[in-house]
Amino acid sequence: MKTIVTDIGMLATPQGKGPRKGPEQGNIQILKDAWVLMEDGVIAQVGAGPAPAADEVIDAHGALVTPGLVDAHTHLIFGGWRQNELGLKLHGKTYLEIQNAGGGIQSTTNATRAATEEELTQKAAKALDEMLHFGVTTMEAKSGYGLATQHELKALRVIQNLNDRHPMDIVATFMGAHLVPAEYKADRGAYIRLVCEEMMPKVKEQGIARFCDVFCEADTFTVEESRQVLEAGLKYGLRPKIHADEIEAIGGSQLAGEIGAISAEHLIVCPPEGIASMARGGVVACLLPATSFYLGATFAPARDMINAGVPVAMASDFNPGSCPCLNLQFVINLGCLKYKLTPEEVLTAVTLNAACAIDMADKAGSLEPGKQGDLVIWDAPDLDYICYRMGSNLSKTVIKKGVVVVG
Amino acid sequence: MKTIVTDIGMLATPQGKGPRKGPEQGNIQILKDAWVLMEDGVIAQVGAGPAPAADEVIDAHGALVTPGLVDAHTHLIFGGWRQNELGLKLHGKTYLEIQNAGGGIQSTTNATRAATEEELTQKAAKALDEMLHFGVTTMEAKSGYGLATQHELKALRVIQNLNDRHPMDIVATFMGAHLVPAEYKADRGAYIRLVCEEMMPKVKEQGIARFCDVFCEADTFTVEESRQVLEAGLKYGLRPKIHADEIEAIGGSQLAGEIGAISAEHLIVCPPEGIASMARGGVVACLLPATSFYLGATFAPARDMINAGVPVAMASDFNPGSCPCLNLQFVINLGCLKYKLTPEEVLTAVTLNAACAIDMADKAGSLEPGKQGDLVIWDAPDLDYICYRMGSNLSKTVIKKGVVVVG
Repeated sequence: MKTIVTDIGMLATPQGKGPRKGPEQGNIQILKDAWVLMEDGVIAQVGAGPAPAADEVIDAHGALVTPGLVDAHTHLIFGGWRQNELGLKLHGKTYLEIQNAGGGIQSTTNATRAATEEELTQKAAKALDEMLHFGVTTMEAKSGYGLATQHELKALRVIQNLNDRHPMDIVATFMGAHLVPAEYKADRGAYIRLVCEEMMPKVKEQGIARFCDVFCEADTFTVEESRQVLEAGLKYGLRPKIHADEIEAIGGSQLAGEIGAISAEHLIVCPPEGIASMARGGVVACLLPATSFYLGATFAPARDMINAGVPVAMASDFNPGSCPCLNLQFVINLGCLKYKLTPEEVLTAVTLNAACAIDMADKAGSLEPGKQGDLVIWDAPDLDYICYRMGSNLSKTVIKKGVVVVG
Repeated sequence: MKTIVTDIGMLATPQGKGPRKGPEQGNIQILKDAWVLMEDGVIAQVGAGPAPAADEVIDAHGALVTPGLVDAHTHLIFGGWRQNELGLKLHGKTYLEIQNAGGGIQSTTNATRAATEEELTQKAAKALDEMLHFGVTTMEAKSGYGLATQHELKALRVIQNLNDRHPMDIVATFMGAHLVPAEYKADRGAYIRLVCEEMMPKVKEQGIARFCDVFCEADTFTVEESRQVLEAGLKYGLRPKIHADEIEAIGGSQLAGEIGAISAEHLIVCPPEGIASMARGGVVACLLPATSFYLGATFAPARDMINAGVPVAMASDFNPGSCPCLNLQFVINLGCLKYKLTPEEVLTAVTLNAACAIDMADKAGSLEPGKQGDLVIWDAPDLDYICYRMGSNLSKTVIKKGVVVVG
């Protein structure tokens, strides 16, 4: 079965299967009057000018086409919401103060534990549908609100089931080390042992996660605890990711480079030595600007990272506390407006580099032969336009593995 | 014909036909287990508990219901877009630098003059459809990209035609004094005479605008020129509005109070004496936070205005240059996150106070007997939720004059 997307006014895509860093981040392929030929859901050929024949023709009517977006960082699986914390924020309480007062992650943990697998599945499926409408075709989802063996495994099963039954490609990250739950506050060591010695073997046995993440931050996990968790994860075949330098720079980004993490997340207050360590370690910087925006924080030093040769990805960080936003198009806006990245650099950040951050660049993140036929036809004439317009859903038609799934 | 909306989990609405200022801005009515009864498109009764009978029943399924949103400031009618200016912004050019280099308003003027009435109508209708989907049921639209008599009148006719044929209520503002167009740069006085002596009489004669607006700003119109324009407008029955203190505080907000403008717009750098003048003059402050966000500017001193007894409204400022965003839900987010207003104050700002800013509070802006049956059923359990969630369209069902127009 051959499907072709024709009459593409502007095709914009990064190229390759590895992360694009330094000046390569903004060096993308732009084709005018282009087409994309797919065969059985896989891209067979990309070209410009007269289009080859196919069984099915999808007319882009002169619009912009890009790869399907990749959201490399979400906390998709959670019970409840936390709109009640908005008032606390408005009265000046910080994220950590709210967390220490029994709100924050722990309150979502209580709601997540109380939710059935089916309830979590329905709730997450609604979010997935919406993300697909916004142009996301591949994403990562973390556990980390169960914080008890059965509930962490429950969350990872939900992700696995959704990956099986939803058009979205979803890769799972185990994040038992998201917070020390209330019942272990008096014995942090015991919780870390639970994560490493009970949860991880079961995650490995059930084959339901590919990555291990840890929240390395003041009041959550220290650098040494984070190292312990990530090294244990490696023993179980879970590649390391790390929430680093979100609020305080306690050394998380340095650790990311030392341990060879596939990605480091947030990096809002990442110091130069952290950037250097990530560059040495080949770490993708996975930046989450909507979280900076929601928290009223500063924005990660994206330009410094690009200048230092660290490949930059951007993701939503969708979660019920610090970023109740699943719209990657808003992240695109913030990439230009707040990081001052160019539209080309931003595109790479939400496609190829994001795919690299979740080890999916063999299938996703660019439009080239051999990759999946995942692409978005935009209600836009060019790449600048989707960076410039704000607040409207500009994704018109979403194609996943060669099949129109939206539009 | 009686229509009732039942099973409203939370009904949230300001009350009255006048602007709500000071502590009254956040003093709204909240009803649980509520209903709204409409008769022939007009609200007949609002209550809680057992609901009366009706011909048509719309079940809100326990969700939040608010008045239809009111967008009190848009530049709806324009040709082209200006995504090409994004690169200039990223390279550090200011708004006024881009304008002075032939970009900015003048480039939109060229595109607007080149567009036919039908082209402008189709383009604006698409935006209106989308605004309606975001929950806006009443709005203002300005001319001001024609900057020549025939093109200003063309824009106002487009607004009038759209008001006649679209569910949205649209009130028109004449803004010939948006910029001195290129062909009059050498003789500003001649352009102001054109606005006041040729355009205004025709606007009056055709009855196609209710307000007169002027861009009082460094490099556009001085305070004295603005006064001249607004006083001329008053002679032709056009109530004054004024773009003031957006970039530099040159005295626009003081003029607003002195001249008794119905509203003053932007006010990003409004000084205390401007706030005091607006309070004395009974001016509604119409704040445009998405523009601050897009320009990377600071945010208007909303709390100082509330404390000084100035009623605060918020609007989108949708336009192709400084705010390519028509989503009033994003403005709601910014009201909390950037102005630090409470959800109750924000609701008043985008409903009743916005309606007052465009003289529509007799019909719109609150849910009470005698007003139009304009309301939104939200995909949200409470008011906090729509302020907290970002990037998703949370408007589920939109009812205009008692009829479901979306959902």
